[in-house]
Amino acid sequence: MIKKISPLAPKNFPKIPKVKGVDLGTAKSGVKYKGRSDIFTAIFDKGTTVAGSFTQSKITAEPVDFCRKNIADGNARALVVNAGFANAFTGAKGKKINKSIATNVKKILKCREKDIFICSTGVIGEQIPLRPTNKAISQSLKESGSDWKQSSKAITTTDTFSKASGRKITIDGHEVSIAGIAKGSGMISPNMATMLAFIFTDAAIDSRVLQTLLNLELRNSFNAITVDSDTSTNDTVLVFATGKAMDHGNVRPISRTGDPRLIEFRKAFKEIMHDLAIQIVKDGEGASKLIHVKVSGAENSSAAKKIARSIADSPLVKTAIGASDPNWGRIIMAMGKARESIQSRKVSLKIGKNLILKNGEVSRSYSEAKTKKYMEGSEILIDVELGLANGDSDIWTCDLTEGYIRINADYRS
Amino acid sequence: MIKKISPLAPKNFPKIPKVKGVDLGTAKSGVKYKGRSDIFTAIFDKGTTVAGSFTQSKITAEPVDFCRKNIADGNARALVVNAGFANAFTGAKGKKINKSIATNVKKILKCREKDIFICSTGVIGEQIPLRPTNKAISQSLKESGSDWKQSSKAITTTDTFSKASGRKITIDGHEVSIAGIAKGSGMISPNMATMLAFIFTDAAIDSRVLQTLLNLELRNSFNAITVDSDTSTNDTVLVFATGKAMDHGNVRPISRTGDPRLIEFRKAFKEIMHDLAIQIVKDGEGASKLIHVKVSGAENSSAAKKIARSIADSPLVKTAIGASDPNWGRIIMAMGKARESIQSRKVSLKIGKNLILKNGEVSRSYSEAKTKKYMEGSEILIDVELGLANGDSDIWTCDLTEGYIRINADYRS
Repeated sequence: MIKKISPLAPKNFPKIPKVKGVDLGTAKSGVKYKGRSDIFTAIFDKGTTVAGSFTQSKITAEPVDFCRKNIADGNARALVVNAGFANAFTGAKGKKINKSIATNVKKILKCREKDIFICSTGVIGEQIPLRPTNKAISQSLKESGSDWKQSSKAITTTDTFSKASGRKITIDGHEVSIAGIAKGSGMISPNMATMLAFIFTDAAIDSRVLQTLLNLELRNSFNAITVDSDTSTNDTVLVFATGKAMDHGNVRPISRTGDPRLIEFRKAFKEIMHDLAIQIVKDGEGASKLIHVKVSGAENSSAAKKIARSIADSPLVKTAIGASDPNWGRIIMAMGKARESIQSRKVSLKIGKNLILKNGEVSRSYSEAKTKKYMEGSEILIDVELGLANGDSDIWTCDLTEGYIRINADYRS
Repeated sequence: MIKKISPLAPKNFPKIPKVKGVDLGTAKSGVKYKGRSDIFTAIFDKGTTVAGSFTQSKITAEPVDFCRKNIADGNARALVVNAGFANAFTGAKGKKINKSIATNVKKILKCREKDIFICSTGVIGEQIPLRPTNKAISQSLKESGSDWKQSSKAITTTDTFSKASGRKITIDGHEVSIAGIAKGSGMISPNMATMLAFIFTDAAIDSRVLQTLLNLELRNSFNAITVDSDTSTNDTVLVFATGKAMDHGNVRPISRTGDPRLIEFRKAFKEIMHDLAIQIVKDGEGASKLIHVKVSGAENSSAAKKIARSIADSPLVKTAIGASDPNWGRIIMAMGKARESIQSRKVSLKIGKNLILKNGEVSRSYSEAKTKKYMEGSEILIDVELGLANGDSDIWTCDLTEGYIRINADYRS
């Protein structure tokens, strides 16, 4: 199958700053993908803190269980990622393979196993071919020196472009870098995390503070996107802080969430999380449009989220948007099936700036032709006002096209 | 758009018995569908009882609200159905249109408004063109004399074949007929009902008993099917019993659910409900395969249903099955995202008779080639055993193909 690059892909790979204390590596195992790297590693300087969030699926991959265990004490020395095999539902053998990868990394870096983080992405149920994978991991760790472009490419599977986002900020007069990479295209409906995303900074931040920041920003980034309502067994977001930009002079590491030095960091961190999440949707399998579903005026924020997700996950809504068809009745259908409080006569609906419903009646100013014209664009806003209370929610998704079917019918072949 | 008949369609229209006391009619309003009837009516003899079940969407169509009100006293004299317009989310005007249809029917039949049942199916949000619709309804009621084939055709929208099912049984030495028709193809994930289904019998059954029978049989028929996880605002199942086959001699009408005379009736009724529901799935938009998802050994039946639905609604599972790809990892993914209790090492999975997982490990006997061969057939069984307790659930769905996208991108054009 020839992969066509998503029409929503950014024109150029973004400028991503170097992060002090992080040494990136990539290598080819040659197992599943020919002619490209499928192994990504990052070696962290001593003192690096880590925070993470993982899938809430009841069936979790081996590497997820492994990371969950190792994240407890907040220290990290290495991240190892393989693309092509999820190592999920692989039984006792899958556990052994994961252990063997950890042992290999531990030996090379002379670090503790609990400071190693392993992530896998790919087909569920198939075993990782151990020997070529470990060989490539060794090479990636030893030769290292890769850049963000190589790194973000190495973790992709059905992705049609590499996803990265970065910012430079200042803390205590020191220039601090934040860089993030992510992968994801199908099986996207994250629940507390997303496919795979890794964010690196050379700021000095305590692991508990890092965890709090991550939890706060998940809601409007990785937990606010859906491609196909399917949730991966491998969803993982990890954030690493090396502290290397702040390890000279008498700079105190940040150990409180309320620390005013975090303000600029949080803004940049939030932007990167959101940017990466949106890039995943823009690379949604078969996507031709980015859809922003905005629900406000719901009974509470949980009801707003359920209604927004119901719209964003509805195959009929997504197919209509793909066809630039203002078939707003399908949006109404999707709202109703969420089974949250709705009073028809209070509902207002806009597609972009086109007012369709006002207090439950079709607006006199509504023009189907104008709305269709707007929907021919590549970014569509579905704006629902329920008029009940103050619950709101934003979800980003993409349209459903024949491309989704083609990609997923062919995925393993 | 040219409608291709579903490859799963039955070869011939089934033999459906006449039901005494029911006079069928069809007519063309000429509004949306050219050259075919889009109005269906049934006139019932006095004394006909009725039971029904309706969508649980929070946004219900006008005719659903109307039927819900009228069903309270259990009597019916007329059923009127229009195809093409859902009369859902049509505001005050939609209510007036429904009222006007009722007034028209009331005048012609000289019956009470509360004995009239109106159902609509089609595009949400568009108004029914009143004049041509009422004209066709009048004609359908006055000229009547249609057969089951004409009637089941008149209620279709995106359906590619007409759906009907019937049986003859004996009660107290009297020959009793049961006949059912249904429509539905997309927006199928019924919650207590389905798109539209009407069942008619000339047995004499009290409306409360009829309602109990309907409630009992919904679980494994209309509530056990899904095409695309979208739930209609118009879902309705109505059952009418004229009593005309039992109105001579000293035959008592059936007024208790425990009446032994119901045994044969229930069996036939169950078969018809199930048959109609499966026909809807077989006509699922773009469907090329019928999929039966069977989950057993769950913690309880609600958990089993959630897991079965999660598999049956997963776009990735449905796409893989469409491609005859034994990508069983996607089934595992869909099980996990349901977030019900699962213990990986207790899970067994079969596709057809092909054992894939036994106690969480890939079976030694598993042959991907053999399983793929089985999956090239048109009826696929996904058989999950969770090994936890006794909860079980059966759901029927269809595969997801490019046909679904094509049909729904084009639906309104």
